[in-house]
Amino acid sequence: MKEIVECIPNFSTSNPKVVEAILNEIKSVEEAYLLDHTYDDYYNRLVVSYIGNKKSVLAATLNSAIKAIELIDMKSHKGQHPRTGAVDIVPFIPIRNVSIKDCIELARKFGKKLAERCNVPVYLYGEAASSSERSDLDWIRLGEYEGLQEMLVKPERKPDFGPASPHPTAGATITGARKVMAGFNVNLGTADIRIAKKIAKALHAKKGGLVFVKAMAAEIPEKKITQIGMSISNFEKTPLYRVFELIQIEAKRYNVPIVGSEFCGLAPLRAMIDTIKYYLKIDDLDEDRILEVAVQKAIEKGRE
Amino acid sequence: MKEIVECIPNFSTSNPKVVEAILNEIKSVEEAYLLDHTYDDYYNRLVVSYIGNKKSVLAATLNSAIKAIELIDMKSHKGQHPRTGAVDIVPFIPIRNVSIKDCIELARKFGKKLAERCNVPVYLYGEAASSSERSDLDWIRLGEYEGLQEMLVKPERKPDFGPASPHPTAGATITGARKVMAGFNVNLGTADIRIAKKIAKALHAKKGGLVFVKAMAAEIPEKKITQIGMSISNFEKTPLYRVFELIQIEAKRYNVPIVGSEFCGLAPLRAMIDTIKYYLKIDDLDEDRILEVAVQKAIEKGRE
Repeated sequence: MKEIVECIPNFSTSNPKVVEAILNEIKSVEEAYLLDHTYDDYYNRLVVSYIGNKKSVLAATLNSAIKAIELIDMKSHKGQHPRTGAVDIVPFIPIRNVSIKDCIELARKFGKKLAERCNVPVYLYGEAASSSERSDLDWIRLGEYEGLQEMLVKPERKPDFGPASPHPTAGATITGARKVMAGFNVNLGTADIRIAKKIAKALHAKKGGLVFVKAMAAEIPEKKITQIGMSISNFEKTPLYRVFELIQIEAKRYNVPIVGSEFCGLAPLRAMIDTIKYYLKIDDLDEDRILEVAVQKAIEKGRE
Repeated sequence: MKEIVECIPNFSTSNPKVVEAILNEIKSVEEAYLLDHTYDDYYNRLVVSYIGNKKSVLAATLNSAIKAIELIDMKSHKGQHPRTGAVDIVPFIPIRNVSIKDCIELARKFGKKLAERCNVPVYLYGEAASSSERSDLDWIRLGEYEGLQEMLVKPERKPDFGPASPHPTAGATITGARKVMAGFNVNLGTADIRIAKKIAKALHAKKGGLVFVKAMAAEIPEKKITQIGMSISNFEKTPLYRVFELIQIEAKRYNVPIVGSEFCGLAPLRAMIDTIKYYLKIDDLDEDRILEVAVQKAIEKGRE
């Protein structure tokens, strides 16, 4: 593959049968390759990651979105993650020999086609946004699925594609383009969501936290703990260790321990490198100094 | 490349012209790919890493070793790293679709040919060793280059190939097979080599330290600091963070800070994963959950 685009759509479901049907749509597209998928009950949300060329990724995204709209009924959807629709958010991400501009174009094509095919309102966000406020997911999501009827009629909230009224069972979809980011969740040894919310607030950029971090609090009832769910949009400028250590500092105030953490989705290598450099006080380390990366590059060179 | 072997020979030189001549021998072999090389004055040692198929790696190793023996004179060699010869140690390492048995065979072939071509005594070590004591580098290196004359005549120290007397300018060579290991050096904020030696001793397996760690102390005069130079032969069972934290604990006793660290040679990805898991308390992370690895695997799948 010369050009590689990644797409990481988030669907509002944790029903294994619906998950399977969505994944099958992606797998059946030639030259689209599933990388990862995760879902759980407490967010009631499926996050899928796949790559391919522009054409195959667009086809996989459209087919899986149409299937999701067919199978998911937002009227009965509950979940701790903010969401506006069955196909909630669809970012296109440049990986290799593809520009952010190419990804913006993909988001526009996808949004237009989905609106036409399913009569669902579609917003463009991130680098594909049609206005500066629309680049911000939080602004678009205000009121969530339940508030769509009221929001969509406001002139400043007219969707970029499709009708100015919600799809009855699928709500609205948000699509756009962005760079690789890190999804990182930290589990707290407390079931008290009020504490988790205070800590999430302390981390969240707009509330006084770290500039490239969005943080939210969620409950994990089966483990009787809470979680700070985060996305770090620029993990090179705001590295993981800084996020982790700051949570530790804030949590200490409530005598709450960090009991675990996880990457949500795939872990970017550069985010890992910065973290290991910090903890082991390594002066100098980059991707090319990692054995597996160096071997891979030598193989590619051999193929040329 | 279907089969990939790595070789990491250590040469007793830090003369840039000799380094260049050695590297040129490797680069000029078709299908051998240089991954990395480092050398410095205080160890007076060149560590080179390259990969290829069995045939190309054997050719690159033999050619570069012959060149090194031609150019290096051990009679005037000084350096802080223990060494027995110009071509000091030559491990073959299985990377992909190659077994440790294949690497043992490569070491035997290389050792036999080098002994024949250059009349240099050669010992087999590691997985290629002809007796259990010979698997241990320290045993073979006893007395170093300067003690070779005395050692080689002992019946139990008869070399595996070549004469039972040292090559006048090239000493003796040690070759063998081993798995991927991590070279990891930690710098101490003290110029006092006695403290560094105590800390190295505390880490070294045979002296009561961590089982898969070999540690030595060295001076870095230009920075007025000391270094614990280590090789960690099984970094999955003895992970880097444990090594680092134990050094920290031992150093605290002398009020000596850790001022930096570095990988010696390339950093294995799995060693990094275990370390990030520890510091960020990540429950579950493996290679396949790293974006770049997952992308690479999808590309390989697409090529099939």
